[in-house]
Amino acid sequence: MSVTKPSLPKGTRDFSPKEMVKRNYIYDTIKTVFKKYGYAEIQTPSMENLQTLTGKYGDEGDKLIFKILNSGDYLKEAESRKQKDQSFEYNAKNILTLISEKALRYDLTVPFARYVVMHQSEIAFPFKRFQVQPVWRADRPQKGRYREFYQCDADVVGSTSLLNEAEFVLIYHEALTNLGLKDFNIKINNRKILSGIAEIIGKPELIVDMTVAIDKLDKIGLDGVSKELLERGFTETDIEKLKPVILLEGANVEKLASLKSVLANSTTGLKGIEEIEKVFEYVNHLKSHISNLTSHIELDITLARGLNYYTGCIFEVKTNEVAMGSIGGGGRYDDLTGMFGLKDLTGVGISFGADRIYDVLEELNLFPTSAQQGTKVLISNFDETAELFALPLLQQLRDANIAAELYPASVKLKKQMSYADAKSIPYVILIGDEEMQSGQLTLKDMVSGEQQKLTAAEIVAKLS
Amino acid sequence: MSVTKPSLPKGTRDFSPKEMVKRNYIYDTIKTVFKKYGYAEIQTPSMENLQTLTGKYGDEGDKLIFKILNSGDYLKEAESRKQKDQSFEYNAKNILTLISEKALRYDLTVPFARYVVMHQSEIAFPFKRFQVQPVWRADRPQKGRYREFYQCDADVVGSTSLLNEAEFVLIYHEALTNLGLKDFNIKINNRKILSGIAEIIGKPELIVDMTVAIDKLDKIGLDGVSKELLERGFTETDIEKLKPVILLEGANVEKLASLKSVLANSTTGLKGIEEIEKVFEYVNHLKSHISNLTSHIELDITLARGLNYYTGCIFEVKTNEVAMGSIGGGGRYDDLTGMFGLKDLTGVGISFGADRIYDVLEELNLFPTSAQQGTKVLISNFDETAELFALPLLQQLRDANIAAELYPASVKLKKQMSYADAKSIPYVILIGDEEMQSGQLTLKDMVSGEQQKLTAAEIVAKLS
Repeated sequence: MSVTKPSLPKGTRDFSPKEMVKRNYIYDTIKTVFKKYGYAEIQTPSMENLQTLTGKYGDEGDKLIFKILNSGDYLKEAESRKQKDQSFEYNAKNILTLISEKALRYDLTVPFARYVVMHQSEIAFPFKRFQVQPVWRADRPQKGRYREFYQCDADVVGSTSLLNEAEFVLIYHEALTNLGLKDFNIKINNRKILSGIAEIIGKPELIVDMTVAIDKLDKIGLDGVSKELLERGFTETDIEKLKPVILLEGANVEKLASLKSVLANSTTGLKGIEEIEKVFEYVNHLKSHISNLTSHIELDITLARGLNYYTGCIFEVKTNEVAMGSIGGGGRYDDLTGMFGLKDLTGVGISFGADRIYDVLEELNLFPTSAQQGTKVLISNFDETAELFALPLLQQLRDANIAAELYPASVKLKKQMSYADAKSIPYVILIGDEEMQSGQLTLKDMVSGEQQKLTAAEIVAKLS
Repeated sequence: MSVTKPSLPKGTRDFSPKEMVKRNYIYDTIKTVFKKYGYAEIQTPSMENLQTLTGKYGDEGDKLIFKILNSGDYLKEAESRKQKDQSFEYNAKNILTLISEKALRYDLTVPFARYVVMHQSEIAFPFKRFQVQPVWRADRPQKGRYREFYQCDADVVGSTSLLNEAEFVLIYHEALTNLGLKDFNIKINNRKILSGIAEIIGKPELIVDMTVAIDKLDKIGLDGVSKELLERGFTETDIEKLKPVILLEGANVEKLASLKSVLANSTTGLKGIEEIEKVFEYVNHLKSHISNLTSHIELDITLARGLNYYTGCIFEVKTNEVAMGSIGGGGRYDDLTGMFGLKDLTGVGISFGADRIYDVLEELNLFPTSAQQGTKVLISNFDETAELFALPLLQQLRDANIAAELYPASVKLKKQMSYADAKSIPYVILIGDEEMQSGQLTLKDMVSGEQQKLTAAEIVAKLS
């Protein structure tokens, strides 16, 4: 066996113990909220059949799917194809499906759609599922962009009720609040409102150009937006009609009132407003006692994510405490499973950007101590006698569900202390001759440096 | 987009909500014990560089590693190699490393070794880590054997202390007991005892043949074992010397006493006995209050797993309640990281066979109700008025951390009840006109079928 200097594939990461407790803290916090709202976890395999994934993410997406080489003599089929058919061009594109039948999942949405179709007879609809698993993309790695990363999705399919949308607003609010975030916006829009606006202006085909331009108001001002709209195919008259929309301001109710007058002649647009209002109504009935909830929700008609996918409400979540892109998003779609032959299954879903949330919590120093700790107490090891003396105490601590370790060798105390430091163990118990005789053990607080003399029972009680 | 009838790659599985809660129950139970003993979680990427994995699992293993096709024009390098060198044989074996640089991890051990070497400067040794992640093997799928499955490993490296071995015995005992298992054996052996026996007989090279034959005593009896030993290259004289070992019986102390006399002239053998005795001593000091612990531990000198890898104690765990292979195993090794250039790092590790444990708990009906439940209560939805009435109650339930749902449409009650049944929701709250007027809501226990009239507050209190 030759010695290889080990390295990691680019764009992939190891997670150390300290990173893992923090990551688990985020996922556990979000999962707990999902479950409280009736969402249940599923998992799908890392590998899907290549044909399950191909064609679902556009040509660019297809290129970014990691393909798995068939086992055994993987060239066999390609070679035999070439022998049978002289005109067969033997190149990377043509032999791909002959040498690779499987691929790593690219997101959680397509595997979820496949799951729903394959398990439709066992599923009790509406199906509320959440899923937290890694996905893989052959993207060019860069800061904050990895080739393996976790997605954290919740979806409900088979229900048209806007109660689901309202509950997702609450889920965002509750999960982010539980994570310690205070100043964040849950932005909401509705695809039908955007369609209505484009319809009123008579340019339904320019819906994307319209939203892209309006979205820049903060940066380039009204003049800039007008200029961009002209460049993107709108006329001065169109822009005049768009002004009330571009300059939409005030509280959500005021925005809705303005929009109602702008969209008075668009059935689609009014339907979008009605949907948003119903979501707000549900939220208010559910969370009337949370006085500041409304301040977190913002109707934002420039929000245009996933426009070729979402058909109703659209969500995006941003924190205002740190400069960071969106930390969550989602929306309602009308045809999740059509690609697998099950038509007209509507649903709505959201996702949390857990990697970004990690960076936000890190920057704001919001990880609680409990999410930074493994072992709570280390018993030092002076010599064999002290080691034997320590064993029953070690057991008592663990019986009280206190994560405890006995240093497994009687090396220099300094080394044992460094070990405690490196593992962020907050307490060390020192047991020397004096301690064994008196039964008064020394408990050292590694943060304050203070030492206390306590009996074993007192230590167990204190650390419980 | 063409419609494809969806399917899964062979040997892979979806996990439904009901399976997930059970799987999580097993992993959470085991992880909780790992943490209590000071083990900390790490995760490594699903992909490793192909050269990190190649040559670590033997030729057969290499074939079973799933390789990932390079992105983009993956044939480029292979084609250019062929053009430059006419004698280059363009076949599956030769072009493999030219078209594939990455592979899916095959186990958690090699990635762990790579992790330790790459992070050695940050790690505080002894390094106690656990890891629960999927691995992939291109094995022929069959009942109970999958191409993607989870491994659940704990290892400590950088410590020679036999306290670690003793703690693994306790970890097995505690985790399996917490999972509800009662009758299981933690078998322990020591590679040095086996070496000693082979040495005494003068056939150290036949150590594997010897253990394989002795292992069959239960099935084929002493005559059968003797016959097999003869076939495997032992003489009648050897077999005479082996008899006390083959017929080793009684409690652990008796077995150790017999072995001591057999191995009196083997330094290695006696060292193995000493190690086992030290492990037992640690276990007794730690767990003197668990009267039946000793009954679970069995010195079994036929235990010979991983003989070309393990150098000290060897573990294997079996349940006696269900016919099933081993549900756990491990041992001490002396050179985990030599393959990556870091020599002489000793360690000891164990793993849990979580898939098998799942089947055992299922067969023995040992999953607690808590591991079979998601949502605790469903509020029925009769009409719009009842829905609005229900919202504050829904909120109160969730505020009390009760997983609750409101059925999101006013469909037939029968359908709503089927939904509760399918999701194993144990309670349904019925809210009709009468209930709204009186404030006395109907709480239906879905298991017993009983109905009670209670106020909202009483229901929250009851379900908390």
